[in-house]
Amino acid sequence: MSGFSRLSLNSATTKKWTLAQAVEGCVAAGIPAIGPWRDRVHELGLEQAAKLIQDAGLRVSSLCRGGFLTAADAEGQAAALADNRAAILEAVALNTQELFLVVGGLAPGERDVVAARQRVADRLADLVPFAQENGVRLVLEPLHPMYAADRALISTLGQALDLAAPFDAATVGVAVDTFHVWWDPELQAQIARAGRENRIASYQVCDFNMPLAADPLLSRGYMGDGVVDFATIGSWVREAGYTGDIEVEIFNQEIWDTDGNQVLETVKARYADLVLPYA
Amino acid sequence: MSGFSRLSLNSATTKKWTLAQAVEGCVAAGIPAIGPWRDRVHELGLEQAAKLIQDAGLRVSSLCRGGFLTAADAEGQAAALADNRAAILEAVALNTQELFLVVGGLAPGERDVVAARQRVADRLADLVPFAQENGVRLVLEPLHPMYAADRALISTLGQALDLAAPFDAATVGVAVDTFHVWWDPELQAQIARAGRENRIASYQVCDFNMPLAADPLLSRGYMGDGVVDFATIGSWVREAGYTGDIEVEIFNQEIWDTDGNQVLETVKARYADLVLPYA
Repeated sequence: MSGFSRLSLNSATTKKWTLAQAVEGCVAAGIPAIGPWRDRVHELGLEQAAKLIQDAGLRVSSLCRGGFLTAADAEGQAAALADNRAAILEAVALNTQELFLVVGGLAPGERDVVAARQRVADRLADLVPFAQENGVRLVLEPLHPMYAADRALISTLGQALDLAAPFDAATVGVAVDTFHVWWDPELQAQIARAGRENRIASYQVCDFNMPLAADPLLSRGYMGDGVVDFATIGSWVREAGYTGDIEVEIFNQEIWDTDGNQVLETVKARYADLVLPYA
Repeated sequence: MSGFSRLSLNSATTKKWTLAQAVEGCVAAGIPAIGPWRDRVHELGLEQAAKLIQDAGLRVSSLCRGGFLTAADAEGQAAALADNRAAILEAVALNTQELFLVVGGLAPGERDVVAARQRVADRLADLVPFAQENGVRLVLEPLHPMYAADRALISTLGQALDLAAPFDAATVGVAVDTFHVWWDPELQAQIARAGRENRIASYQVCDFNMPLAADPLLSRGYMGDGVVDFATIGSWVREAGYTGDIEVEIFNQEIWDTDGNQVLETVKARYADLVLPYA
């Protein structure tokens, strides 16, 4: 078993690559798994994408992403449910159980986070039966609080677990993404709880670069370039019993402008140094 | 009693004003309290600053700020304690009980947030006796998690209350600053807890502007310009029993570039519309 047996490339890390290029890059680099984004899948077509990945012998660690569940109007809610049901079927076709949900922020002009969060809970309840029938797990991803208004009103792992609690652990899980959660004073306790509750569906790694990039979405970095303590968080995730894939997902303009094969070599080196020893 | 009887101008809102200009501006605008920053006090000299404010008949709602307690070396720790003791004496001279602490982030090159937070707790314990002797309350301010690495490893109100718990409520309090805490899923519960524990030392208001400014420190806005729900948070603070001053603290380049008297008129109008009805 290679040291990279749990490493997965999230396709956003090599944003300029097509899915075919990303699959080829993973195979060449000895990375056994991939977490594709839906736009890259759609470009190629779902069946062809599934076949391409399967023929290359790669696992699909997750599909990114459904979500955006906070529409306040009936039309927006129906559209969100339709899109998420489509994403569930795409996950099935791609042979992954894990569908990431970025749950969405406030509706336009809205300020009532309590009401918006209730809509997340309501839409999640709407989606669970369809996910369950299809054997797909909806993965609630807490996002850093700087994205609460516009991207995800789930800001902590504890909050994600509370939202997941009414549902079967095989159907609603949570993600631990180091960029989003490293700062959380409850992190150790909530990772342990996530383990006890069998909810850890994904461990995503990248660093939190300082100072923040002018576009705060792009402040993710290679492991080792920022402030994240991968030894500590990785140990907590291991102690919680997580043995699944470890996805590297980096949004960073400089990395996007770098040759993809070179990016994968850096990812592997940082993973071997900073993540693998504690995984 | 005027509708503005609890309104206080934090001097950072009119950053280009000297303390004398800010005092004059408050008097002219009928704002009865001021929360000065230490640099503005030092410019004028402590005794003169105290006399100026007292002669103008203004209350001092708080002093901003001590803190930066996370130095890992003995020299840095001694310097931090000395600076915070000086700040305590300045608070006494200015006749305010409330000294804000921005507790500091990681030491240079450090990634161990658990250890850095322990140093905050240790330095707080060092400072409490001196604060108590001088009748000053150390006000722990949770900062938005995007500042965790470089400014404050207290990121939630619950965490601030946990840190405060070993100490007398008259000596260690917490601040509720809408910009920093609006996103927190535990906010309602923790504001209620802060009230029960008699820890609410300050309620600061400003908005959280979206999209984030390129310099994330400057994303604060006039109440009403961003995503904060002042009705809801203000009601929670009122229900928690807080009846003290309400400080307006805004870091925003455009506001800093506006004539200070005009800024105060806008502050008063927004306060009257969005804050006062729930206070």
